[in-house]
Amino acid sequence: MSIYKHIPFNKPYMTGDESFYIKDAVLSGKISGNGKYTKLCQNFFEQKYGFGKCLLTTSCTDALEMAAILINISPGDEVIMPSYTFVSTSNAFVLRGAKIIFIDSTKDNPNIDVSKIEKLITNKTKAIVPVHYAGVACDMDVIMDLSKKYNLFVIEDAAQAIDNFYISRDGEKKALGSIGHLSTFSFHETKNVISGEGGMLVINDSKFYSRAEIIWEKGTNRNAFFRGEVDKYGWVDIGSSFLPSDIIAAFLWAQLEHIEKIQKKRKLLWELYYQKLKVYCNKNNVKMPFIPKYSAKNGHLFYLVFKSKKQRDLIIKKMKNNNIDAVFHYLSLHKSEFYKDKYKGEQLYFSDYYSDNLLRLPLFYSLSENQLNRIVSIIINEKI
Amino acid sequence: MSIYKHIPFNKPYMTGDESFYIKDAVLSGKISGNGKYTKLCQNFFEQKYGFGKCLLTTSCTDALEMAAILINISPGDEVIMPSYTFVSTSNAFVLRGAKIIFIDSTKDNPNIDVSKIEKLITNKTKAIVPVHYAGVACDMDVIMDLSKKYNLFVIEDAAQAIDNFYISRDGEKKALGSIGHLSTFSFHETKNVISGEGGMLVINDSKFYSRAEIIWEKGTNRNAFFRGEVDKYGWVDIGSSFLPSDIIAAFLWAQLEHIEKIQKKRKLLWELYYQKLKVYCNKNNVKMPFIPKYSAKNGHLFYLVFKSKKQRDLIIKKMKNNNIDAVFHYLSLHKSEFYKDKYKGEQLYFSDYYSDNLLRLPLFYSLSENQLNRIVSIIINEKI
Repeated sequence: MSIYKHIPFNKPYMTGDESFYIKDAVLSGKISGNGKYTKLCQNFFEQKYGFGKCLLTTSCTDALEMAAILINISPGDEVIMPSYTFVSTSNAFVLRGAKIIFIDSTKDNPNIDVSKIEKLITNKTKAIVPVHYAGVACDMDVIMDLSKKYNLFVIEDAAQAIDNFYISRDGEKKALGSIGHLSTFSFHETKNVISGEGGMLVINDSKFYSRAEIIWEKGTNRNAFFRGEVDKYGWVDIGSSFLPSDIIAAFLWAQLEHIEKIQKKRKLLWELYYQKLKVYCNKNNVKMPFIPKYSAKNGHLFYLVFKSKKQRDLIIKKMKNNNIDAVFHYLSLHKSEFYKDKYKGEQLYFSDYYSDNLLRLPLFYSLSENQLNRIVSIIINEKI
Repeated sequence: MSIYKHIPFNKPYMTGDESFYIKDAVLSGKISGNGKYTKLCQNFFEQKYGFGKCLLTTSCTDALEMAAILINISPGDEVIMPSYTFVSTSNAFVLRGAKIIFIDSTKDNPNIDVSKIEKLITNKTKAIVPVHYAGVACDMDVIMDLSKKYNLFVIEDAAQAIDNFYISRDGEKKALGSIGHLSTFSFHETKNVISGEGGMLVINDSKFYSRAEIIWEKGTNRNAFFRGEVDKYGWVDIGSSFLPSDIIAAFLWAQLEHIEKIQKKRKLLWELYYQKLKVYCNKNNVKMPFIPKYSAKNGHLFYLVFKSKKQRDLIIKKMKNNNIDAVFHYLSLHKSEFYKDKYKGEQLYFSDYYSDNLLRLPLFYSLSENQLNRIVSIIINEKI
């Protein structure tokens, strides 16, 4: 046992209303998918962020799989995405037979380097999947221009990007997730609003609306049936059971009702880290999160990028000695055991750089300023 | 508004402990997948029913998809299953490129007619998927013999078959789900024990143990890492996010603690229907559920099979007039919009017969004997 009080990397926050809504869902007689709370959550997102049709899923992984099915990914199709991302970003497309074209991150932050996309587009390219790492926007204007020029689908992996915004070149502020043809969100316990596991597919291109509902409902036209549009329902397409229990949606609804409060606190903690570590980072050549002028902030994740893996691992160890969990993040997918022999592209310097050198600091609703100060002091007192 | 009090087809039952366990899960700091309650539920099934390794999933659909990935279903592989089943039984294999070979039900009950399997086995056949309809056992001895003779996998679709047993020809009593190489269960709100949406994969063939864990965890060796078996974890295989939130597992755990009580009540209701409808059914040539000598009962579902669709639909209407929801069930998958042009086999008389003539009666934990009597009296007072 450490003499220091434990600070976990993440601690799920419960607003207090979750149990009430779950009980209410049970009393309603319907806790399977597409119930009252599922509809409440979906409407919330559609109204608040100008999203197209929203469909809750059991995970962001499942939302990505729905996207891959919707754009008819077939064996041989190519999909462009960063290598520095979660395994599901790629797996969802690999499951449908796609070849993944990995692109490097930028030197400023782990987001995809949009300047490298065009030369990798071939006649097999079907989609670009930008990942808004740490909730920070990718340069969507450039990506959407390429999408129009080459007739490609854009699927925003907005797993970490809830309640954040892109400022387009004409000054318009657009919610992340509202820009691509399709977008995916996560409500995993480490995210800003949570349901343990959970996700959402956003369908901004209305031509996908009706098929998305079918794929969501196990390949059946059940929803059209309940709306009275067809006189019986049955198997009409491939699909899966992508919809979560209304218990999950009830939990999520309690979170969404408090989203302003949660976001305010998380952004405050993010800002505190930033201000308190600024001098140290400048002096020691440690990178802070870089927020481009086209991105707002959503307080999802605070990270530092050290000069070397050795330095980063030293801080992890130091934290561990103080009973604090600070953790690295992704490992380049193009070098993974599963993909290394399939990958034929160039070296991805920055993807490997973030794999080796990036450290995530604890950031959760109930983190106190005292705890944050303890974390900061360990870093700034370490000679590197 | 009807003057009669509504009797729904199903009403989810809450034991009262669900909220407590959900709160406990949140307080534990971990509500994503594979948490404390997930492990409790999985251990429960492994201990009580002699199952191999159990892995909770977000649905029975997802468990079937895991099974299809585990046995390496590839384009062109053939999978044998009944046509009278839920769309997910087939969709899970179609998603991996399988051709579905549909087989008729028996004349006695909707289970697969095992006498028709052997002549449909080809060198492309990879698996047989018996579905224990209404929780009643398929003839597993015959199916397992065929599996050995032709080196095929058997995946029990035990969605409705929790807590039921097969009595093999040597007199051994085996839990349904413990016999095939793999088995899948559902905890959808209409099942005996529930979590809204939810499911489980049972892995009885130990050669699948380690890969099943990887596929469950998005194609990563995360579990092996946490057990200290590998020094880092990453992308090693295809996979998805098959694991449910621990919120769902906490809900399920409250149900499992009361499984004996739930089963006792459901079996009682089933028996009451049986006894009260016996004379009427005999006289009017209406079929009651047939339980073969090799099957025990689990009180999952009570159905009647009328002589014609017209008769069945008349009873549905009569029920509706009395504010009671009695419902038909599957429609033959080989005749579905999605598969009718792909199906090249023979007519499946009994599959269509159950599609047209089968009626399910309300059966849920809180159904009272008075309500049951009201339902029975509507049936037996109807001249057909």
